[in-house]
Amino acid sequence: MPERHAAGARPLALTPLALTMGDPAGIGLEIALKAWAQRTARGLPPFVMFADPDALAQRARLLGLDAAIETVACVQTGASLFHKALPVVRVRLAATAKVGLASAVNGPATIASIEQATEAVIKGEARALVTNPIAKSVLYEAGFGHPGHTEFLAVLAARRDPARHILPVMLLASAELKVVPLTIHIPLRAVPGTLSKALIFETVRILWQALNRDFGIRQPRIAVTGLNPHAGENGAMGSEERDVIGPAIAELQAEGLAITGPHPADTLFHANARKTYDAVVAMYHDQALIPIKTLAFDRGVNVTLGLPFVRTSPDHGTAFDIAPKGVANPESLIEALLMAASMAAQREQAAHCAGQFRAP
Amino acid sequence: MPERHAAGARPLALTPLALTMGDPAGIGLEIALKAWAQRTARGLPPFVMFADPDALAQRARLLGLDAAIETVACVQTGASLFHKALPVVRVRLAATAKVGLASAVNGPATIASIEQATEAVIKGEARALVTNPIAKSVLYEAGFGHPGHTEFLAVLAARRDPARHILPVMLLASAELKVVPLTIHIPLRAVPGTLSKALIFETVRILWQALNRDFGIRQPRIAVTGLNPHAGENGAMGSEERDVIGPAIAELQAEGLAITGPHPADTLFHANARKTYDAVVAMYHDQALIPIKTLAFDRGVNVTLGLPFVRTSPDHGTAFDIAPKGVANPESLIEALLMAASMAAQREQAAHCAGQFRAP
Repeated sequence: MPERHAAGARPLALTPLALTMGDPAGIGLEIALKAWAQRTARGLPPFVMFADPDALAQRARLLGLDAAIETVACVQTGASLFHKALPVVRVRLAATAKVGLASAVNGPATIASIEQATEAVIKGEARALVTNPIAKSVLYEAGFGHPGHTEFLAVLAARRDPARHILPVMLLASAELKVVPLTIHIPLRAVPGTLSKALIFETVRILWQALNRDFGIRQPRIAVTGLNPHAGENGAMGSEERDVIGPAIAELQAEGLAITGPHPADTLFHANARKTYDAVVAMYHDQALIPIKTLAFDRGVNVTLGLPFVRTSPDHGTAFDIAPKGVANPESLIEALLMAASMAAQREQAAHCAGQFRAP
Repeated sequence: MPERHAAGARPLALTPLALTMGDPAGIGLEIALKAWAQRTARGLPPFVMFADPDALAQRARLLGLDAAIETVACVQTGASLFHKALPVVRVRLAATAKVGLASAVNGPATIASIEQATEAVIKGEARALVTNPIAKSVLYEAGFGHPGHTEFLAVLAARRDPARHILPVMLLASAELKVVPLTIHIPLRAVPGTLSKALIFETVRILWQALNRDFGIRQPRIAVTGLNPHAGENGAMGSEERDVIGPAIAELQAEGLAITGPHPADTLFHANARKTYDAVVAMYHDQALIPIKTLAFDRGVNVTLGLPFVRTSPDHGTAFDIAPKGVANPESLIEALLMAASMAAQREQAAHCAGQFRAP
């Protein structure tokens, strides 16, 4: 399918994705090199990495990976040379990273990579942001003042557009399943008290918009889980379905959304059930992540919805333990790059056509 | 593989399984007829059904199922005629069941079927108990004084052996996965307060014994999940791993059990992870049931451990909604029959050899 040109009339294929470095002692550099090596076989979109080119070259030598690396002065030039070299915008490390050993010394460079890559995306020099894994504890030591990657991106986005209210929403996506955890990194005992109709409303609306605009689904069908066993079995095993989740779904249905639930979570993820919806909103971390990691362990992509740009990342961590061995699997990063390009193209096309037809 | 003879020197193949009727308005009669029809193709062990033979014949006519039904006076004779007819111990219905319509009128017959089948197993006339689905709300209306099927069986077992402490443990089993939920039909908000070291100890010991004796695994490997996201990430997202689950695992390890955890639940159920254990103990209903129903929706078997006899059941309900249509899938019942026979044979062999070698 030939790519459509964006409103700015710049050929989309020449605008690369921006890929961050991640923690330079983790597997980020390795999977980036391995993904680039598969660029032709996997039909990867051009991407520019924000990293230290010397660290990349060292890692390639250390692991015996064949890689050409070329430092570029501006992001746009990266796309045209991507076929022959991995284009890199230089972000200098403070010290050579010891592979597999977490260290705060390169925390500032890790943060700078995220800032510069995000800036390039916000300015339109790059089409979408793909981030490599960071280690939060390492960045905290280096003075990082945000709970995590995603919250930091929300702050960077807000710098450009302070009036905008940003609620980042985590979507886990693979060919088998798209699922959003309504609550994420909180203790299980805090989940029931964190659920609210307002949180469900905002999350579902952000998900609906993304399915429609970034995944090209004109009439998204969203299924919502219950919190309790058997979705509470009419109140016999919990009241949140009756008091919070059910009423929120009813209001969204009244607005015309194709949304169903609360469904018992255990019977919502087998092959036949998955045919009945485009995405699931689950109530908490494990309820969302168990099914997708059971079905698509190495292929899941973490997508952040609710930002003013497309952002994806591989669905794994820095993996310091295996970083020295050279055995890291680039599959999730490859899927993250492909998904970012696809989402950006859908969004660009939607923007291009915005004046011509209305979303349903 | 030729079957071994039990200590009593009665050929095992001639001792049938006991299958209950379940709710006569649900799909129990239908899936029993369908399973019997596949007895040769699936190599099913002989089973005797405790049900109303007229109701079975009516259902067969209604659904156009070809079935020979033969009322037997005693359980043992059922095995020898199983090849040519479905053997039935008569349990008379009070009224003709209206297929698909829940009604308390046949509650007493449903309960009598469970009592008589269990009695046959306890007396050794049948090898193991396989139960068809019941509707708790229907039985409550009929005066049933037990929270559920499993608790009723524990009471029936205790009648014979009042001194014995019985903790029924639910195991969900398929070819892909065996998993036990530590807590089951309680609201999610009650789960953290219900966890205790004592509950973990007793559950793990019952599971270990069953894996060893009923599944023939000499050195069972058991993996235990955490409660919180990332198993609490060292206390950053919850304290139960540090305060309850971790210490319980450490004590069991000190006893020499091959038990690991607390593991983050989301990364414990993909194909490679499943190679590292024989069974999982999960903390609550959905954490256990999401992965097995995602992997093996129609093939999961519900096994009750901790009873003084083998009991399995299909992993679904009465399905009143589809009962009139004749489209019920007998696969889970077939798996439940096969698993009950296999577990009973393992247990009989273990009893037969008990004087000859010690379990490791």
